[in-house]
Amino acid sequence: MPRSPVYFESIEIGEKIESIPRTVSETDIWTFAYLTADFFPLHTDAEFAKKSIFGKPIAQGMLVLSIALGMIDQVILSNYDVSSIIAFFGIKDVRFLRPVFIGDTISATAEVVDKQDFNEISGVVTYRLEVKNQRGEAVLSALYSALIRKNPSK
Amino acid sequence: MPRSPVYFESIEIGEKIESIPRTVSETDIWTFAYLTADFFPLHTDAEFAKKSIFGKPIAQGMLVLSIALGMIDQVILSNYDVSSIIAFFGIKDVRFLRPVFIGDTISATAEVVDKQDFNEISGVVTYRLEVKNQRGEAVLSALYSALIRKNPSK
Amino acid sequence: MPRSPVYFESIEIGEKIESIPRTVSETDIWTFAYLTADFFPLHTDAEFAKKSIFGKPIAQGMLVLSIALGMIDQVILSNYDVSSIIAFFGIKDVRFLRPVFIGDTISATAEVVDKQDFNEISGVVTYRLEVKNQRGEAVLSALYSALIRKNPSK
Amino acid sequence: MPRSPVYFESIEIGEKIESIPRTVSETDIWTFAYLTADFFPLHTDAEFAKKSIFGKPIAQGMLVLSIALGMIDQVILSNYDVSSIIAFFGIKDVRFLRPVFIGDTISATAEVVDKQDFNEISGVVTYRLEVKNQRGEAVLSALYSALIRKNPSK
Amino acid sequence: MPRSPVYFESIEIGEKIESIPRTVSETDIWTFAYLTADFFPLHTDAEFAKKSIFGKPIAQGMLVLSIALGMIDQVILSNYDVSSIIAFFGIKDVRFLRPVFIGDTISATAEVVDKQDFNEISGVVTYRLEVKNQRGEAVLSALYSALIRKNPSK
Amino acid sequence: MPRSPVYFESIEIGEKIESIPRTVSETDIWTFAYLTADFFPLHTDAEFAKKSIFGKPIAQGMLVLSIALGMIDQVILSNYDVSSIIAFFGIKDVRFLRPVFIGDTISATAEVVDKQDFNEISGVVTYRLEVKNQRGEAVLSALYSALIRKNPSK
Repeated sequence: MPRSPVYFESIEIGEKIESIPRTVSETDIWTFAYLTADFFPLHTDAEFAKKSIFGKPIAQGMLVLSIALGMIDQVILSNYDVSSIIAFFGIKDVRFLRPVFIGDTISATAEVVDKQDFNEISGVVTYRLEVKNQRGEAVLSALYSALIRKNPSK
Repeated sequence: MPRSPVYFESIEIGEKIESIPRTVSETDIWTFAYLTADFFPLHTDAEFAKKSIFGKPIAQGMLVLSIALGMIDQVILSNYDVSSIIAFFGIKDVRFLRPVFIGDTISATAEVVDKQDFNEISGVVTYRLEVKNQRGEAVLSALYSALIRKNPSK
Repeated sequence: MPRSPVYFESIEIGEKIESIPRTVSETDIWTFAYLTADFFPLHTDAEFAKKSIFGKPIAQGMLVLSIALGMIDQVILSNYDVSSIIAFFGIKDVRFLRPVFIGDTISATAEVVDKQDFNEISGVVTYRLEVKNQRGEAVLSALYSALIRKNPSK
Repeated sequence: MPRSPVYFESIEIGEKIESIPRTVSETDIWTFAYLTADFFPLHTDAEFAKKSIFGKPIAQGMLVLSIALGMIDQVILSNYDVSSIIAFFGIKDVRFLRPVFIGDTISATAEVVDKQDFNEISGVVTYRLEVKNQRGEAVLSALYSALIRKNPSK
Repeated sequence: MPRSPVYFESIEIGEKIESIPRTVSETDIWTFAYLTADFFPLHTDAEFAKKSIFGKPIAQGMLVLSIALGMIDQVILSNYDVSSIIAFFGIKDVRFLRPVFIGDTISATAEVVDKQDFNEISGVVTYRLEVKNQRGEAVLSALYSALIRKNPSK
Repeated sequence: MPRSPVYFESIEIGEKIESIPRTVSETDIWTFAYLTADFFPLHTDAEFAKKSIFGKPIAQGMLVLSIALGMIDQVILSNYDVSSIIAFFGIKDVRFLRPVFIGDTISATAEVVDKQDFNEISGVVTYRLEVKNQRGEAVLSALYSALIRKNPSK
C-alpha cells in the first residue's frame, strides 16, 4: 500500500496533525549547543542559569521549535508521499511562551489555518504550530508555511 | 577587563553584528536530522533529492537559521556580559530565499531595526538577520527579537 | 483523533509496515563507531577497506539493522498508541546479505509472520524484516518479535 | 611486535573474550535514538516510561547489543590482525533478559561455541555473547557468527 | 566594520584573552569518549569511578584542555581576522591540577608570555592557559604557541 | 582470565604500545568543532582553507592528539587492569609536524621513555607518543606522563 501524495487541493483548513510526545534531555540541549556553537549561558552555564529568572538551565527556543517541527514531520512522512511538498516556505510569528526545562516532555500539534494559490502548479499552506509540555501548558506557538504541489492530474 | 553588560538604552538602531563564516557540512545536516528525528527526504534521501527541483540534498531551513543565530550569538557572547539579556522573545517572518548545499559557506549579519519599551525594567530589541553564501547571495532572512534589561543604575 | 492502541488480537499475519527510505551517510557510520567504540577497520580505516573484498568502507551490519528497525518504528509510532507494546522480545536469524556503502539508500519492510499466545495479558508477535537498497537488492533480513498486550476490554 | 592474524584453524571452541565494563548513560540512549530516529517512548518519553512496567526509561535493546558487540571487538582489535575476519555473518537468537537503566554498568563475554567449514578459504565461527550488569545479572544473550579466513600458508 | 588581522608585531606580552564560562556536562564527557573511542573507566565506568580517589567520574583531561582552547579561540575569532594565524605550533607543559566533575563550570584565560622571531614572515607567540572552576580553583594550566604572520605592509 | 594490574615496577623503559590505524573523517573534524565550539576557519570554512598554505581543511591538532591518545588507551584497557593508573599527569612538548587531511589514516605508538619515583605508593611514567599517517610520515609527537601505583604487595 504505497503512500499517496499530499496535494494542495486535498489539504483542508482545520486539519490537524498530532505528534507523539518526547522528553527534552540534557543531551538535546548540549547537542543543539554543539551544532550551533552557541553557548548562551542560560542553556550551558549552570552558575549563570541559577541566577537567572528561571533558576536553572532552560532549553534553547530554537531547539524546541526544531524538535516540534521534526515531530510533526515524522507523522507526515509516515503517512504521505511527500514528493508533492516542494519546499519549506517560511516561518511567521514564533513565540516562546514558557521555559522548557530538562526532563519536560513536549508534544506538538500543527493545524492548517490558511491556503493560498501561489502559481499554476503549487500553493502555500500555512500551519499553526502549538507545543505543550506534560502539564498541558503552551510553551511555544508559531505559524509556518510550505509550498505544496497541485494535483497534476487535475 | 570584564565584559560590560549590554543594556537596552545603549543599543542603537542601525548597529550591526557580523558573524564569522562557516561551511555547512554533511555532518551538520545529519546531526540536525538526528536531533529533530526529521528525515525529510530532501535532506537525507539522495535518490529523492536527485529528482527534486534542487537536484541534490539541501540543508534544512531550520538548520541554516539555527546556525546563523548561533554565529551571531558567539560574537555577542565574546564581547558583552549577557546577563542583561533576559530571554529570546520571538521570531517573525523567516524566509528561505535560496537553497544551501553541502559545502556552501554561510555568514550572517544581524542589524538592530527596532526598539520598543516593554516594561519598567526591560525593552524589546528587534534584529534583522541576513544570511549569505560564499557568492554573496542571500539565502535566508528573518526578524527576531530579544527582551533586554534596562540599565538599573539610571 | 487520538491514536488507537495496537492490541495483540487485532494484529494479523501478513500485515506489512513499510518505512520511508533513508540514505546511509558517512556521518551514520562514524556516529555508530563512536557510540559502540568499535573501530573495526572495514568501516573506519580507508586503507584496510581498500584491500578488503569490498574495496571501500561498508556500513556496520548492526547500524543497518538498527536504522531499519528504527525506520519501521517511526511508522508504527506515528499511527498507533504503543502503550500496548510491552517490550522488544528478541531477534532471530539476522542475515547480512549484501554490503551497504556510503551513499546507498535503504528502505525496510516488516511483515507479521507469526503470533503466539504468551500469557493471559499478552502475546508474542514475530515480524520478518527485509531491508533493500536503491536498486531493490536485499541487503539484510531478520526475524524479530515483540511482546504485545491483549485488549483488556475483551 | 605486530599483531598476528586470527585464522579459522587457530580459534578453539571454549575460548573466551572478556570486555571491559562501561556504564550506559543518558547520552548513549539519546545518541542511539538520534541515529535510528526511533523515539519509542519507553526510552525517550519520561511520562510514558513512568507508567510502564519498568517505572523509568530503559536503554534500547539494540543499543545494549551494539555496545556489547563493540566492547568485544575492541579487545579483539587490540590483540589481533583482523584482516583475516572477512565479514560479520549473522546473528541468531538475541534475548533481552532484563532492563538496562541509565547508570547501569554492563560488561560482555563472547565464547566460541561453534566452528563450521564454509568453503576452501574460510569458516564460520559462532560466539555466544552474554551481557551482565554491575550486579552480575544477565541482561542480554545472543549468538552471532563471523566468516573467518583459513591460514593461507597451510 | 571588518575584523582586523592580528599580526605578530601588534601582539604584546601581558595581553590577556578571557573566555566565557561553560559547564562541563555528562554529554561532554561521553561525546569526548565517543570521538576518541577511549572508555578509560575513570570517566565512563561509574562503579570504577566510585572506588577511585575521586569517588565519582571526572572529565577527561584532554576534554578540559580542548574545551578551554576552544573557548579562547571563540573570543579571538569574534574579534580578529585570523588569516594571519598560520598554524597551531605546539603545546608545552600541560598540568592537570584538580579534577573537573560533571556540573563544574570552567572558564579560561590565555596570556601572552613570550614572542620569538621565526622567519622573515612570521613569529611564534606563546600563551599561558589557565583554567579555573566555579570556585576560582585552578584545574589546568598549559603553555601553547601559535605561528603568526608579520605585517606584510611593514 | 582476569586482566592483571599494570604496576609502576613492572613497566620498563623501551616498552612500546602500538595502536590500530584509524581514518580521520569529516565527521571527526566537525564533531571536534562541535564539542569545543571552536570553528577556527582552517578546519570548518572551506573558502578560508582553500586560500591557506594547506589548500584545503585540515584536522585540528588537538583532535589528532586526542584520537592518538585514545587509540593507545584502547590497547592498554584491552590488556590490563587499569585501576593501578591513578591519573593522567601531564603533557609536555606536543609538536604538530604535518597536516592531517580528511581521509588520512593515522596510527600511534607510545614508548616508555622515563620513570620517576613520585611518593611511597606511586611513580610517574613518561611516554613518547608518535603519530604517523598512511605514508609513514610523522604528523605529531608528544611526551605525556601518568601517575601509576606501585605494587602494594611488595
